[in-house]
Amino acid sequence: MSILIKNIDLLSMDGERDLVKNTNIYINGDRIDHIGELKDDIDVDRVIDGKNKLAMPGLVNAHTHMGMSLLRNYADDLPLFDWLQKKIWPIEAKMTGEDIYWGTLLSMVEMIQSGTTAFCDMYVDMEGVGKATEESGMRAVLTRGTTEDKVNPEGKIDETRVLYNNWHNKGNGRIKIMVAPHAPYTCGDGFLLKLMNLANELNTGIHIHVSETKKEVEDSIRQHGKTPVQHLNDLGLFDYHTIAAHCVHVNDEDIDIMYEKNVFPVNNPVSNFKLASGFSPVDKMLKKGIRVALGTDGASSNNSLNMFEEIKLASIVNKAVNLDAVSVSSFDALKMATVNGAMALDIVDEVGTIEVGKKADIILIDFDKPHLYPKHNIISALTYSVQGSDVDTVIIDGKIIMEKREIKTLDIEKIKYLTEKYAKDLIKR
Amino acid sequence: MSILIKNIDLLSMDGERDLVKNTNIYINGDRIDHIGELKDDIDVDRVIDGKNKLAMPGLVNAHTHMGMSLLRNYADDLPLFDWLQKKIWPIEAKMTGEDIYWGTLLSMVEMIQSGTTAFCDMYVDMEGVGKATEESGMRAVLTRGTTEDKVNPEGKIDETRVLYNNWHNKGNGRIKIMVAPHAPYTCGDGFLLKLMNLANELNTGIHIHVSETKKEVEDSIRQHGKTPVQHLNDLGLFDYHTIAAHCVHVNDEDIDIMYEKNVFPVNNPVSNFKLASGFSPVDKMLKKGIRVALGTDGASSNNSLNMFEEIKLASIVNKAVNLDAVSVSSFDALKMATVNGAMALDIVDEVGTIEVGKKADIILIDFDKPHLYPKHNIISALTYSVQGSDVDTVIIDGKIIMEKREIKTLDIEKIKYLTEKYAKDLIKR
Repeated sequence: MSILIKNIDLLSMDGERDLVKNTNIYINGDRIDHIGELKDDIDVDRVIDGKNKLAMPGLVNAHTHMGMSLLRNYADDLPLFDWLQKKIWPIEAKMTGEDIYWGTLLSMVEMIQSGTTAFCDMYVDMEGVGKATEESGMRAVLTRGTTEDKVNPEGKIDETRVLYNNWHNKGNGRIKIMVAPHAPYTCGDGFLLKLMNLANELNTGIHIHVSETKKEVEDSIRQHGKTPVQHLNDLGLFDYHTIAAHCVHVNDEDIDIMYEKNVFPVNNPVSNFKLASGFSPVDKMLKKGIRVALGTDGASSNNSLNMFEEIKLASIVNKAVNLDAVSVSSFDALKMATVNGAMALDIVDEVGTIEVGKKADIILIDFDKPHLYPKHNIISALTYSVQGSDVDTVIIDGKIIMEKREIKTLDIEKIKYLTEKYAKDLIKR
Repeated sequence: MSILIKNIDLLSMDGERDLVKNTNIYINGDRIDHIGELKDDIDVDRVIDGKNKLAMPGLVNAHTHMGMSLLRNYADDLPLFDWLQKKIWPIEAKMTGEDIYWGTLLSMVEMIQSGTTAFCDMYVDMEGVGKATEESGMRAVLTRGTTEDKVNPEGKIDETRVLYNNWHNKGNGRIKIMVAPHAPYTCGDGFLLKLMNLANELNTGIHIHVSETKKEVEDSIRQHGKTPVQHLNDLGLFDYHTIAAHCVHVNDEDIDIMYEKNVFPVNNPVSNFKLASGFSPVDKMLKKGIRVALGTDGASSNNSLNMFEEIKLASIVNKAVNLDAVSVSSFDALKMATVNGAMALDIVDEVGTIEVGKKADIILIDFDKPHLYPKHNIISALTYSVQGSDVDTVIIDGKIIMEKREIKTLDIEKIKYLTEKYAKDLIKR
């Protein structure tokens, strides 16, 4: 299969604010074969007219819990403790693999429709998430969120080993598996070391929640005499490739450590606000040289999985926090959602920018929408004005996954019908 | 003209979280005639099927500068001072009435497509804004933003008198005029008093920027020994119905005054973040009993005019500011965008809720979108998950202004073409 996207404006994210007007992108198989003028004898199966559209790398949602879409708008406006302990955890405990599979498919519809091509998921029963990822055509790092099980620690650890054996490198290499200790406060040191050994055995990275709330940091200082970041660093966890979700309450010493150890923090602005966690020092981290990525978190703490919301918010809210209108520029926010996300997921050699030789994970934005006029500055428009619903076409791994907003790989009516049904069943259970 | 919306779920905003499932709304002329079971002999010109849709009051954008859409994404990521003095003010000075008319129409397309039915505008040459409001079918309070003119103060004041004579109560009463001193720092006390006299003469209200930035408050304390709120109150300005835009940097004494004097602050979260103004104490004002409204500000400091973005943000960001997950609930945010907005615009007797006898300003949300499944809680969904692009139908003053996302009153292709052309001309001028 070969695809030619012709007469398209291109923001490759391979460099600084480098918008190329009216070019051509030629995709052969799963890779970008050529950008620019075309040879006459080129073989083309499909031609997409790029008029009034912009091509950019598919967005990377670097921290989410896909199955939680089944709980979207189920419990809101509650104190964090009541929300988690009285609402979310009891209902999550009743969720089956089937629930998670359908909830994940529902998440995928929303993510594809708003321009996300790759994601990093942490959830419980991951078998259905693997299946859904293969079927949807999306790219993913899948992780089994692991809390310490004192009765059967090896059994719990083995779940990631099984996940790895079943799904690592599946779907033409679109699926990768990492190890996911849930958080330093739900895993003791000995258990964390076992999970680090597993990452070593599987030669893969680690995905973990870090310093999401003030309480978590205070508890860590009380228990260990140091912050979660310092504690994890002393354990050697950051010697592995680490995706550190949230990093809201990190101090200057934590930021120095994350920079030195090349940790990838994931900013989740909507979730951090909605759960009253606070404001992450994104500007400080970016200025230090840390490659901060961006994520939506799960749908029940957001309650959307729309990366364009996060892009706008990551940029604007840091200006208010720092009382500095040049803090986290529009281009910084776009990098967080693309190339930095690909770095966090350890797939930047393959995706995250639009370059010849890379896998073709490309989205086309419909720039003919009235709310994107007049076209003064395309990069500003992408961060501050584009809506998720302006995404017209999604290509992943060289395959057209959505065209003119129609998803080719998933049965939306069936997904809506069954998630509504399973959500109702789940509450009655 | 009579319209029947049948089998529709209804959030009237007339009370507390009162969702009525599967009812009927009958509109006769410009007013809501009946809600509920229908008589057999009812006369119906148009029937709208409400299946999978939700009816709610049209959104009220209580503070904006419509003409600024012509400058959308023109200048961003600059320090506030450079942005205003080097970019925005010089180009605004070159704008003609024709520019403002077309920029306003562009704003109206975006606002209608994202569910706004009424707005309060403050800009320069308002004649074209009146014309655009009449043509679009929208409801509005129009105000001529007035800064002190020491050479010809009466001429400046007279512009509002002319605006009032030309447009007040025009468009079947959809258009109202208020007096708009730009801000206490751009109008001296004597000039403010003259504008208050004009409000008295015209028997209308006042629209003014108040305490948007920290610097403004510090300057006021230095100059007058009191905050802008205290200064305006001592001048007697709050004896008039007052729409006070921004109110970011207000202290407890200011909040007490605003409550006692029944001032209507307008929260503009996106603009306040993007311009690095800060966080308005919305939760404190609402708890005091102040009816805080919501607005987008102009497109050049946002860069959208999408009230659903503001609704979500007003709710979630206050949770993070107050480290309290129950701060500014989903329903509070919906009230800010509907009934409180109508109170601010002094049109709550006519609109802001869906009630028999009120004017029919109603929007229908398409709840069949995948990102709104499953349907656990419609009020949570409206605040946290609904996108502007989920608005399907817009009715204003009993007229169908948009149906199945097609706007009936405006020529979108012409507006896109001419705003692109005028924006380019403006920069070259």
